[in-house]
Amino acid sequence: MTIGIDMMGGDFAPLEAVKGLSLYFAAHSYPARLLLIGDSDALEILLKEHKIPREQIQIVHAPQVIDMHEHPTRALKEKPDSSIAVGFRMLAGGEADAFISAGNTGAMLVGALFSIKALEGVIRPTISTIIPRMNGSTGLLLDVGLNADCKPEQLNQFAIMGSVYAQLILGIEKPKVGLMNVGEEEGKGNLLAQATYPLLKENKHIHFVGNIEGRDVLTDKADVMVCEGFTGNIILKLAESLYEIAKVQEIHNPYFDRFNFEIYGGTPVLGVSKPVIIGHGISGATAFMNMIHLAQQMIEKDVMNKMREELKAD
Amino acid sequence: MTIGIDMMGGDFAPLEAVKGLSLYFAAHSYPARLLLIGDSDALEILLKEHKIPREQIQIVHAPQVIDMHEHPTRALKEKPDSSIAVGFRMLAGGEADAFISAGNTGAMLVGALFSIKALEGVIRPTISTIIPRMNGSTGLLLDVGLNADCKPEQLNQFAIMGSVYAQLILGIEKPKVGLMNVGEEEGKGNLLAQATYPLLKENKHIHFVGNIEGRDVLTDKADVMVCEGFTGNIILKLAESLYEIAKVQEIHNPYFDRFNFEIYGGTPVLGVSKPVIIGHGISGATAFMNMIHLAQQMIEKDVMNKMREELKAD
Repeated sequence: MTIGIDMMGGDFAPLEAVKGLSLYFAAHSYPARLLLIGDSDALEILLKEHKIPREQIQIVHAPQVIDMHEHPTRALKEKPDSSIAVGFRMLAGGEADAFISAGNTGAMLVGALFSIKALEGVIRPTISTIIPRMNGSTGLLLDVGLNADCKPEQLNQFAIMGSVYAQLILGIEKPKVGLMNVGEEEGKGNLLAQATYPLLKENKHIHFVGNIEGRDVLTDKADVMVCEGFTGNIILKLAESLYEIAKVQEIHNPYFDRFNFEIYGGTPVLGVSKPVIIGHGISGATAFMNMIHLAQQMIEKDVMNKMREELKAD
Repeated sequence: MTIGIDMMGGDFAPLEAVKGLSLYFAAHSYPARLLLIGDSDALEILLKEHKIPREQIQIVHAPQVIDMHEHPTRALKEKPDSSIAVGFRMLAGGEADAFISAGNTGAMLVGALFSIKALEGVIRPTISTIIPRMNGSTGLLLDVGLNADCKPEQLNQFAIMGSVYAQLILGIEKPKVGLMNVGEEEGKGNLLAQATYPLLKENKHIHFVGNIEGRDVLTDKADVMVCEGFTGNIILKLAESLYEIAKVQEIHNPYFDRFNFEIYGGTPVLGVSKPVIIGHGISGATAFMNMIHLAQQMIEKDVMNKMREELKAD
């Protein structure tokens, strides 16, 4: 198993990425083989400084960097030797089984959508977020911004992909799927939600529990919460702001600490043929470690193929 | 000035409604004339018990009650002598200048939409919510559920109506209008947001500050936050749930206390010709007092006519 890592992506790269490796190797007895993509001179020095074991590591030199605010498509075209462009080439060419970056989010999405294949039948890939819930568990919300306008069929696919992810990665045996809506009863909602409800209800590959409302997001009424990316993105960013608010209000509370989304490491693109994990720009060492761990888990549990099977069966 | 009050609406009516009168008369030196609509025998007893001064009061007997879970349109038709039906008849007939109820929300909305007129040119009336912000001030979010699917022109009207309300009732001199969206830059968002942006930008009757994101909802980046009712309802209910969460987490914090939406009293229907205020089912005495106070303010400040003028000028 080989995981490609963009060592130059993120506000604190490559230092925090290297520190992340250190944490990863300390925690995993069977670590994956890692391709460290970035400036080889800078990386050599840091790897030595942080005494990173070299057996599982290969440095792949990528002299260019795509900055956080560059135009994604243009940057990928104009910087073929950037760490992100190199990473996706290796992923597409089969030299890597997964690719991780905390760099330019747009470039990561464009790369995921156009350099590797979508799973058969997937209308559009999606991105999700973990939602910390009051009872200590985590739920999954999707889409959170890749697809601002959706068709009912897309939401139905999100439900399937989210259920597979929740089962294999979040460890929820029979994930309850809820449709984000403005009321509990069938027939409520905007045109999209009204048209999506019957699809979810008839979908035998998920455990649909009906509509959920804004008040249910932080409870365990549903494990997989489905909506278009406009609503999902607003929910995600509102939830993220709770961590900031708790800090400003000097509330020291373990539940609100969990709204510090940086600690989770990153969000995978779902619906593509290989794991692509996008980290927060401000990812620190723990986030990098978590992203490598997530990529490893996704490969080990064969998440993409399970999604392919469930989507095909539908 | 005459304000009609549904004394039978809400989980704790008529007792809490009567207690609300008591608070209202204690706080206002120039109280409005109040029409108390409900079961006259029950009300007579309670008014005596709570020593409510009678000069400003008239009881209007309404022997029927629409329950919280009745079908709105059917209930209004089948119970013409219900407190809500009587209230809207008096409002439409000019015997009342405003109408308040904490009863069946659906019936209140149907009554507001069909018994009194929409303001000239208004595509559809809207409902808003107050948003408590970290700096102590309050913002306004609309629509919060009356219009789950919207056209750009509707969002433009919400911006105008919200601005008038924020100015006259929330006391914000030049309210900043923000468009709820998934990114800051113009051109971001779903089709609706993309089409709405230029309308708001060109609208000379509002102070448009651009797109706002989920993380901005609880800040003062915008005073009037505009979206369709699907997203708005989910934001509102998620925000409401913060009060519950703070309670469960045993967080005693004055900011989170402000997410107890019961205390605000109720939400006005905007875009109709007369003030209609809809309260929470669990409204207590303070909420009833606040609702009467809000109705009085809306009449005194001629909010509906100001909205009419601004909408016409657009």
